[in-house]
Amino acid sequence: MLKILLNGCNGRMGKVISNLAANNNSIDIIAGIDPTGIKSDNYPVYKEISEFKDGCDVILDFSNANSLAAVLNFAETNSIPTVLCTTGYNQQQLDDIKSSSEKVAIFNSSNMSIGIGILSYMLKKISPMLYNDFDIEIIEKHHNQKLDSPSGTAIMLANAIENSIDSDVEYKYGRKGMAKRAKNEIGVHAIRGGSIVGEHEIIFAGLGETIELKHTALSRDVFAVGAIKACKFIATKHSGLFNMDDLLSIK
Amino acid sequence: MLKILLNGCNGRMGKVISNLAANNNSIDIIAGIDPTGIKSDNYPVYKEISEFKDGCDVILDFSNANSLAAVLNFAETNSIPTVLCTTGYNQQQLDDIKSSSEKVAIFNSSNMSIGIGILSYMLKKISPMLYNDFDIEIIEKHHNQKLDSPSGTAIMLANAIENSIDSDVEYKYGRKGMAKRAKNEIGVHAIRGGSIVGEHEIIFAGLGETIELKHTALSRDVFAVGAIKACKFIATKHSGLFNMDDLLSIK
Amino acid sequence: MLKILLNGCNGRMGKVISNLAANNNSIDIIAGIDPTGIKSDNYPVYKEISEFKDGCDVILDFSNANSLAAVLNFAETNSIPTVLCTTGYNQQQLDDIKSSSEKVAIFNSSNMSIGIGILSYMLKKISPMLYNDFDIEIIEKHHNQKLDSPSGTAIMLANAIENSIDSDVEYKYGRKGMAKRAKNEIGVHAIRGGSIVGEHEIIFAGLGETIELKHTALSRDVFAVGAIKACKFIATKHSGLFNMDDLLSIK
Amino acid sequence: MLKILLNGCNGRMGKVISNLAANNNSIDIIAGIDPTGIKSDNYPVYKEISEFKDGCDVILDFSNANSLAAVLNFAETNSIPTVLCTTGYNQQQLDDIKSSSEKVAIFNSSNMSIGIGILSYMLKKISPMLYNDFDIEIIEKHHNQKLDSPSGTAIMLANAIENSIDSDVEYKYGRKGMAKRAKNEIGVHAIRGGSIVGEHEIIFAGLGETIELKHTALSRDVFAVGAIKACKFIATKHSGLFNMDDLLSIK
Repeated sequence: MLKILLNGCNGRMGKVISNLAANNNSIDIIAGIDPTGIKSDNYPVYKEISEFKDGCDVILDFSNANSLAAVLNFAETNSIPTVLCTTGYNQQQLDDIKSSSEKVAIFNSSNMSIGIGILSYMLKKISPMLYNDFDIEIIEKHHNQKLDSPSGTAIMLANAIENSIDSDVEYKYGRKGMAKRAKNEIGVHAIRGGSIVGEHEIIFAGLGETIELKHTALSRDVFAVGAIKACKFIATKHSGLFNMDDLLSIK
Repeated sequence: MLKILLNGCNGRMGKVISNLAANNNSIDIIAGIDPTGIKSDNYPVYKEISEFKDGCDVILDFSNANSLAAVLNFAETNSIPTVLCTTGYNQQQLDDIKSSSEKVAIFNSSNMSIGIGILSYMLKKISPMLYNDFDIEIIEKHHNQKLDSPSGTAIMLANAIENSIDSDVEYKYGRKGMAKRAKNEIGVHAIRGGSIVGEHEIIFAGLGETIELKHTALSRDVFAVGAIKACKFIATKHSGLFNMDDLLSIK
Repeated sequence: MLKILLNGCNGRMGKVISNLAANNNSIDIIAGIDPTGIKSDNYPVYKEISEFKDGCDVILDFSNANSLAAVLNFAETNSIPTVLCTTGYNQQQLDDIKSSSEKVAIFNSSNMSIGIGILSYMLKKISPMLYNDFDIEIIEKHHNQKLDSPSGTAIMLANAIENSIDSDVEYKYGRKGMAKRAKNEIGVHAIRGGSIVGEHEIIFAGLGETIELKHTALSRDVFAVGAIKACKFIATKHSGLFNMDDLLSIK
Repeated sequence: MLKILLNGCNGRMGKVISNLAANNNSIDIIAGIDPTGIKSDNYPVYKEISEFKDGCDVILDFSNANSLAAVLNFAETNSIPTVLCTTGYNQQQLDDIKSSSEKVAIFNSSNMSIGIGILSYMLKKISPMLYNDFDIEIIEKHHNQKLDSPSGTAIMLANAIENSIDSDVEYKYGRKGMAKRAKNEIGVHAIRGGSIVGEHEIIFAGLGETIELKHTALSRDVFAVGAIKACKFIATKHSGLFNMDDLLSIK
């Protein structure tokens, strides 16, 4: 059983991980770290990572950017491979991650879903083949409480397309009025409603045919499943910086 | 066999009608009217409707708004029920149609598809039931040569929703930036690409569930099928102004 | 606040109702009934409904068919409107429900989702209009642990279509081999995979166009939302047997 | 301009090719071959390929399996690269094609759509990554006059999946009754209705997420577009047997 130290154990994703781990024979959360210090599961909870004195195989971090320094310091000192699932790092922090990864293995991704990783992979492969003859449009759907439009994942996917083709493109966030579609547009449409967890669809529309790739998140479990896969992947590495493409064995 | 006089026989829709009629035992195009006067099918073609001297059961008009006066005059004089499938009438012309319909039966609709008629019908029925608890979004898709966004049909459907609920709504033609969806928004998203004939989808997104209604036009045949149905419907009427709702026996 | 007595409070749906009620200012679960007698929420739990001695506005039943007699007896004796969300009643029990409903108001439906109710309503309305010219196919999708194929809801929707048209239809549960589709077929296709909560889609495919109606359940919350609506609906009724159509004000 | 000799010019796909070529400045159909010998376009038509005495750059064959021997003989004798879009070859004929391809370049594919080629390519790439954790289901939709179920293309895609993973799978052509989905099933569901040209959708359903890949053919133009691409691709080759994967530069 892989012994996991869970940083941010009382947060929304921390709880999802705990639930999933309880029904999974291959991993064991041996302790949690949370500023609240509240124990709500069958493992001890510490307020700070430095208080943890036992051994573990992997650190899994679903906390926030502020705790990065403490996590990296602990990982380096104890040579423990680490999975960072937190977003919002600034440039200095990204540099620190890179620097630490020379001494200890670090996995870092802002979207832990396997499916989004696969979608991104396919887009990089087929966009160059299709771009000359097909128009590309992106539709994403989320619940009505989401603040940002379009979603960060939609932008990440649009960037993956743009970087894979050797052309300047223009993102188009909606259409109203009289004007034909320009060839170099990529439409990015944000639908908002109800409690939709998250859908991302990319349409390639050509002469007489369309190809559509779609990812649907049914629950936050997808991020936990991806995170646990990342833990198993990183556990055997000694140093280096890894991401979803590495996990999916894609190069 | 229903004898049809086809105004605008050499236009794009005129040709679709001619092809469909050739394989249909219940209707017969006995003559066409077209400013070109060119005969390209197995019926005579006249440059002006007044040149036609034989009898017919119905006038089917797929020409343009300029020919309205001649068509109405001919229909009234000869008491021939008429189906107008032309768009772009001004207010005076709409008044003329209404006035003529007191003497002869007239069917007028800007979208002859049975399916869009059904979609519109359903929206009027369910929007009042769902509006309080569900968010409404519209997605329409068309080919990359279409000039107007969103489509006239999408606007017609949005209006059908707005008129059926007792609330002020705001149409939202795209989203970019940081802001939660307002309750009274109806998102109207125009996707453009390739040679897509026409799709219209309405999403009702609620707590834990979504309902989607979608219409896909596979070819221009849909408008011809609807037009022929309208010809059969109007043929037995003596006067009055009719539309798709009447054809679908919906009141 | 509507005072609800929740029968089956410790079952899967009982817990969903409890969670939803905790965040809802218009309803209050004042007590639960469960054979376990275990209190897991902030309301008292009794092993049998007869032990409950306080007043309440509505009984909400998400237990099982065996508890019907006790529930009906309690409802009749105390004149409390009752919502039955349990499935699997035999004919005698259905007769008992009908008989009790002459004395006390009873709401009974095997699927409490508002969306499925709306879907069923639309199918009854449009199937007679479309059946002659459109082919009807049903696709349902559920998780890979579901035992029955097709789903009970898919069969209910297929029956709603069949009853609304004046024709004998044949349900077709898959196609393999060489044979054209018969006109009177309704294809009913069961997709199974992953953790899909539940999707039901009805396709009307005609000449040159298709109409699709689709319902997606994102979580079990949909059934709780419908159940709470039913409680509010039934609370003001004195007698009679009601179902989803009544709740949706559809006749 | 690429000079094309079109075998089967009066067949359904022959006419589609002729229409497309008329509006395409990069290709020129200089003659057609058809057993009818009827000239219906602005190029000469011969009853047999051996009657054609002028030069051409490529032979494009949309005829039937019976004409293979004559086509191969003509191609070899005159060293003309050839695109075979005909289906239904027997094993002897497939051997003859292979044998001829040692002397002259031959392109052979039973589905000329670029989009289906891309879909097949993606499936081969991602199925091995996903198979352990995701369930795979295929849905295909075609018009109500189609004889075979499931479609040849659906079977080709299912085979592409099966060959890419190192597991025995069982195709499941419909579900009825009480039984959980087996892990090694691939559901293959054939929807039939109206005039649907052709849709193929592959669903990967996992824990908390689904990935869907979908191809929609809007018209037979897709096959003509692919065929013309294949003509341009093969025109510069001297020998060898090529298929869609080669055209898409996928190895």
